[in-house]
Amino acid sequence: MSSNPSQLRLGIAGLGTVGIGVIKIVEDNADLLSARTGQKITIAAVSARDRGRDRGVDLGAYAWHDNAVDLAGDDNVDLVVELMGGSDGPAYALAKACLAAGKPFVTANKALIATHGKELAQLAEGKKAALRFEAAVAGGIPIIKALTEGLSANNISGLHGILNGTCNYILTRMEREGLPFDEVLADAQRIGYAEADPTFDIDGIDTAHKTAILAAIAFGMAPDIDNLPTEGIRNIVSVDIDYARELGYRIKLLGVARQQDDGVEVRVHPAMVPLSSPLANVMDATNAVTVSGDHVGPTGYEGAGAGQGPTASAVVGDIVDVARGVWYPPFGVPAAELGSPAHLGSEAHIGTYYIRLKVADVPGVMADITQTLAREKVSIDSMLQRGHADDGGVYIVLTTHETTEEAANAALNHFNALECVLESPAMLRIEAA
Amino acid sequence: MSSNPSQLRLGIAGLGTVGIGVIKIVEDNADLLSARTGQKITIAAVSARDRGRDRGVDLGAYAWHDNAVDLAGDDNVDLVVELMGGSDGPAYALAKACLAAGKPFVTANKALIATHGKELAQLAEGKKAALRFEAAVAGGIPIIKALTEGLSANNISGLHGILNGTCNYILTRMEREGLPFDEVLADAQRIGYAEADPTFDIDGIDTAHKTAILAAIAFGMAPDIDNLPTEGIRNIVSVDIDYARELGYRIKLLGVARQQDDGVEVRVHPAMVPLSSPLANVMDATNAVTVSGDHVGPTGYEGAGAGQGPTASAVVGDIVDVARGVWYPPFGVPAAELGSPAHLGSEAHIGTYYIRLKVADVPGVMADITQTLAREKVSIDSMLQRGHADDGGVYIVLTTHETTEEAANAALNHFNALECVLESPAMLRIEAA
Repeated sequence: MSSNPSQLRLGIAGLGTVGIGVIKIVEDNADLLSARTGQKITIAAVSARDRGRDRGVDLGAYAWHDNAVDLAGDDNVDLVVELMGGSDGPAYALAKACLAAGKPFVTANKALIATHGKELAQLAEGKKAALRFEAAVAGGIPIIKALTEGLSANNISGLHGILNGTCNYILTRMEREGLPFDEVLADAQRIGYAEADPTFDIDGIDTAHKTAILAAIAFGMAPDIDNLPTEGIRNIVSVDIDYARELGYRIKLLGVARQQDDGVEVRVHPAMVPLSSPLANVMDATNAVTVSGDHVGPTGYEGAGAGQGPTASAVVGDIVDVARGVWYPPFGVPAAELGSPAHLGSEAHIGTYYIRLKVADVPGVMADITQTLAREKVSIDSMLQRGHADDGGVYIVLTTHETTEEAANAALNHFNALECVLESPAMLRIEAA
Repeated sequence: MSSNPSQLRLGIAGLGTVGIGVIKIVEDNADLLSARTGQKITIAAVSARDRGRDRGVDLGAYAWHDNAVDLAGDDNVDLVVELMGGSDGPAYALAKACLAAGKPFVTANKALIATHGKELAQLAEGKKAALRFEAAVAGGIPIIKALTEGLSANNISGLHGILNGTCNYILTRMEREGLPFDEVLADAQRIGYAEADPTFDIDGIDTAHKTAILAAIAFGMAPDIDNLPTEGIRNIVSVDIDYARELGYRIKLLGVARQQDDGVEVRVHPAMVPLSSPLANVMDATNAVTVSGDHVGPTGYEGAGAGQGPTASAVVGDIVDVARGVWYPPFGVPAAELGSPAHLGSEAHIGTYYIRLKVADVPGVMADITQTLAREKVSIDSMLQRGHADDGGVYIVLTTHETTEEAANAALNHFNALECVLESPAMLRIEAA
């Protein structure tokens, strides 16, 4: 608003794709950002491992720090943007140094927040320094803002998220092209949609970090990555994708957090989602989150979950908030009030299940199976048997009515012991996401 | 954070469904709101037309003002919530009185903001008073927050919204049940989904108010309801819904705002939306908005667009922001910098079109039609002719390649003059929303 606006000078730690994306937005959209904040947002200093690398942007005007932690003490830096990654090491050290000095800290680092979120929030609150991490979850989708601010009137009853673009891309191509997991993964690695070491994505760890952060905000508890039951998509096979479709579902890797009577259930696993639900139609690398609140009802958010532009958009959105003087406790309530996570064990989960068995095509098989289910009080919703596998076995696929995961697992164990069952049964949770 | 938190005392003008919803949230979720704001949020005073009416909540503890405008001067009221509606009259008077006194003002009143938004923003900025209106657009969906804050790093290239639940409900039932517009409208009125006088909804006026507000924020221009081309859904007939489906589309009433080379195009009209696009699958009374930014790419938001809980959720979300001390210019940039809306005339719109003609089943008809289109340089993308109408006429349905609306309208006028054309042709824009 002033003709001689004040400045907000950034220090950027980490000059990978997202760091360069932030520089691009700050440069390209400088006038817009100035109009929206009443301040001139500039870059004062940067830090990265390799000073010599050509990153396609001119860094000559910015001070260089070999040690990222030095950005915390650089008096020409008003706000530090951390884009190095990693739950510990320099990212953690930099966060602590900034917040202890009362310097605003904006990060895209989900591992850092999922691991040290409560401690960092306490540091930030002590100095009323901003600690913001919109880019840590679901890239460009302003979902942390929706939870901490837009839906702040509500007790959240539950949320479901497709939070990892790599997994959703792999599942989408497996379904569309009828290809096996390994082949799609290899191709995703070739074209840069999956890392050389894909563990972090496909085993659900990345989704778990993000889910822990969303659950912490939604339910006012400290993020707790250590007690979060996590399964990835490695064991998803094409036959289940096909049966899912036939039954009116699609398989998605979900982060789930839900208020139950006796605690909050937080978990990450592949699930069968009804084709009519919003998350079922989120394809390729897109991310999406559905959130239900006690007054607002169900709401949904969708967009790019990764990539230079979307992630940098979220980082700069946080910077705009800081420039506007927005401040409140980083998790929406004071860190001291964040409850201990009362994660429920997954055995207590009550839900419906998809079970696929490969059985010998002999008399009495169906009786064995239905008796096993009856013994565990698992009641059948639908059942289908069709065609023959190459080895002469037959697939039997069934969905259950609501039951505890404990009972479903017990039935699975009994199936494993049956002579007519030819291989370890497959089970997937069904989620109305 | 303090054990003796300060208070934020509300004055509520208007005790209809939403007003009562706000009281319920403030009472039911008092502890939550206190944890999230560090303040005790209470209700100090209320105002409504009829003091005697039973509203199902106990208003005995609150001061009563017969004249809503008196809330502005009530020293026991820290923030005024306006839920009376109407672009002028008491709502406008109350807004001006509050903001002139530097008192925060939260409203769900789309007509007020679409009509007087710039003037009120200037008043608010002069006193650094909060003027917030999340509930004015798309009910419980925090779309204004997404535009002003979450996506603030971006130049917005375009947005599309399903912003009126009544229209979407009517279109959904017309398609699902094959019923004509009048019959579904009458039924919607019976069950309370449409007003006795439905004009405001079905003629697109409500959508236009909301679209004007979203466009103002997205493109940094004053809201301008007077120059916003607006068409409603009165003329949508079942035969077009059926053809849309056959061609892979669904008809939705859209609010559209899009950056073009020479200005911003803002318009409200029914459109055919590809079934693969996110908005096509938004059914019943649900609202949804898609927004594209230069760095974030496409994003989407969905939820309940009206009703007690969702609308009150948005109002209380704004109250929480005010309690947290969040302040920035109401439209995201200073009101003085809001450009004059450079709405483009709809003739300049370049797009693809659906055209349906009822023609006599005589030789030479197809030649007449294709020659007319060729003369206006409108090129055909697809064409179908099937069956006979009851009166012996035949429907010819075509979609065009990209063309100006001017050319499409010219072709339509020529069709009207052809002897073989039996009734006024139908035309719908196709939008990749």
